[in-house]
Amino acid sequence: MSENRRFLLVRRPRGYPVEEDFSLIASDIPSPPKGGFVVRNHFASLDPAQRGWMDDEESYLPPIALDDPVRATTIGMVHASDHPSFPVGQWVMGLNALEDFSVVVPGGFTMPIDAAAVASPSHYLSALGAVGLTAYFGLVEAARPKAGETLLVSGAAGAVGSAVGQIGKILGCRVIGIAGGAEKCRRLLDDYGFDAAIDYKGKDHAALVEAIAQAAPEGADIVFENVGGHVLEAEVFNLARHARIILCGLISEYNAASREGLRNLWQILARCATIHGFLISDYVDRFPEGATQMAQWLADGRLRVDEDIQYGLENAYSAFMRLFTGENTGKLILRIV
Amino acid sequence: MSENRRFLLVRRPRGYPVEEDFSLIASDIPSPPKGGFVVRNHFASLDPAQRGWMDDEESYLPPIALDDPVRATTIGMVHASDHPSFPVGQWVMGLNALEDFSVVVPGGFTMPIDAAAVASPSHYLSALGAVGLTAYFGLVEAARPKAGETLLVSGAAGAVGSAVGQIGKILGCRVIGIAGGAEKCRRLLDDYGFDAAIDYKGKDHAALVEAIAQAAPEGADIVFENVGGHVLEAEVFNLARHARIILCGLISEYNAASREGLRNLWQILARCATIHGFLISDYVDRFPEGATQMAQWLADGRLRVDEDIQYGLENAYSAFMRLFTGENTGKLILRIV
Repeated sequence: MSENRRFLLVRRPRGYPVEEDFSLIASDIPSPPKGGFVVRNHFASLDPAQRGWMDDEESYLPPIALDDPVRATTIGMVHASDHPSFPVGQWVMGLNALEDFSVVVPGGFTMPIDAAAVASPSHYLSALGAVGLTAYFGLVEAARPKAGETLLVSGAAGAVGSAVGQIGKILGCRVIGIAGGAEKCRRLLDDYGFDAAIDYKGKDHAALVEAIAQAAPEGADIVFENVGGHVLEAEVFNLARHARIILCGLISEYNAASREGLRNLWQILARCATIHGFLISDYVDRFPEGATQMAQWLADGRLRVDEDIQYGLENAYSAFMRLFTGENTGKLILRIV
Repeated sequence: MSENRRFLLVRRPRGYPVEEDFSLIASDIPSPPKGGFVVRNHFASLDPAQRGWMDDEESYLPPIALDDPVRATTIGMVHASDHPSFPVGQWVMGLNALEDFSVVVPGGFTMPIDAAAVASPSHYLSALGAVGLTAYFGLVEAARPKAGETLLVSGAAGAVGSAVGQIGKILGCRVIGIAGGAEKCRRLLDDYGFDAAIDYKGKDHAALVEAIAQAAPEGADIVFENVGGHVLEAEVFNLARHARIILCGLISEYNAASREGLRNLWQILARCATIHGFLISDYVDRFPEGATQMAQWLADGRLRVDEDIQYGLENAYSAFMRLFTGENTGKLILRIV
């Protein structure tokens, strides 16, 4: 490797990204800045949130600048260093980009990881990373489930959703998953141990409302929301009193040119329900606690976190689009080397 | 009075109620049931929630049955009784109806009130009633304001909104009100002591977003929502991180044939904000505590609660419609006798 391939955002997507919105270029391998270091990226996390960062819209992180590489959480190894705590060869995780080499400036958000503690360093992007910790803190802390409660999870076959459902089962909830297609619903029941699965595909609004009502006749005490749009609206017609909706993602809305709104807010009022906007960044100082618990459940065989590993920076676009076509089966990760 | 006039719902309104949806009939004065009593109604509360009860839609109370009188909280005096704790002449408050006389069955939700403790028994429908207690518990308990926080109130010149703003000031918040029209905005500043007032009338979406941003450059920490629709949407673009939205009413949506939804839920996520559906019924067992505090603030001259008293069951329809035309200036009350 004598060059640094970088997957740049060259145009802001309208709706679904197209290949022309990006460009893969080659540049020189960077040198470490004073007090910083250079990371050789091995794995990159591909997440719906990246689609949001491509828009020119204020959010919890600034938009990705045009002609910058697409921001991503990566796992890599220190390649060159001017930082005594990050020697060459150290495995690290940090918010970098889809590129072979990333420059980490002093104070940048990067932390060392213990690659020997897991079967693959990629697990720090799935069960022990943002995905697993979003599921853990979103459910355990934001929703505070009690045994016997009914938990409804949308995007249930996805990386976050499948972990949420399994944690719900560990904590004694009755867990219902909503996913697209018969195969995903089969996986909810067979692979992740959900109590019930609802296929939203081919169902109009009334049919989806009715399917949820049949699966949760007393209403949902907790809704863990990854989808938004008409799926959320159907769920909101099936809330138990004092239901908590954890708003974790709205993947159905990220590419929509004109967003439909949530038209049944009245139900939130009538059920004394709560909608919590949840970002994992509120829990950064508790990551070690969450990762320890997740690692324990993994080791005990009580939790299964699947990874969908795609290969090569040259395939970054098609790999990323798997998030929106519903093709991915587990946490989507791009293996760079 | 030798008859019982009753204001019946005879047809479910579509959109705004019309006079033909109701009928005023006269029937015999009822006798008390075994263990119950009959109330002579003096004052009835007219509230937006009544419009919701007229729809054939599941809510926190069942719909008003067709040909039943319109459900209302009333203040009255026991007229005939078979209940030892409710002797004839006792002032009571309860969930009754727009009619001269209401029958209260054993166990019905009616409680004695101390009419001598207030300037007018009607105050139990305003400052010490659901309006005042909704403002009190909705702000103090559901939002838990801290001194120095920015509180944004919609429907701010209304009965609940004006009380919320004044309580916010007592608790040390910076209070911004949104209301319709220059006169209402003047009252917010002059009569209720708000720090800023925004007239939503004549402003399109972008102008309203911008007006809120100018009044609350750091964003709103608390939104007390009485309106919904495009007002709520504009507020949601102006949230501080961890903002709490108290969803108390959605008056702009109650008569809408097709509801527009809340299209910027993404902002709830990005700001880690929370939407709380608030109903006063969650706080029934704490009413005495709230009423005591409100009575104290009234007595101290720190709180002003206006009443808009309309006269006569024969004017029930036109009185009720004042809620939706924006004509009412204070808690709307129908005086029956």
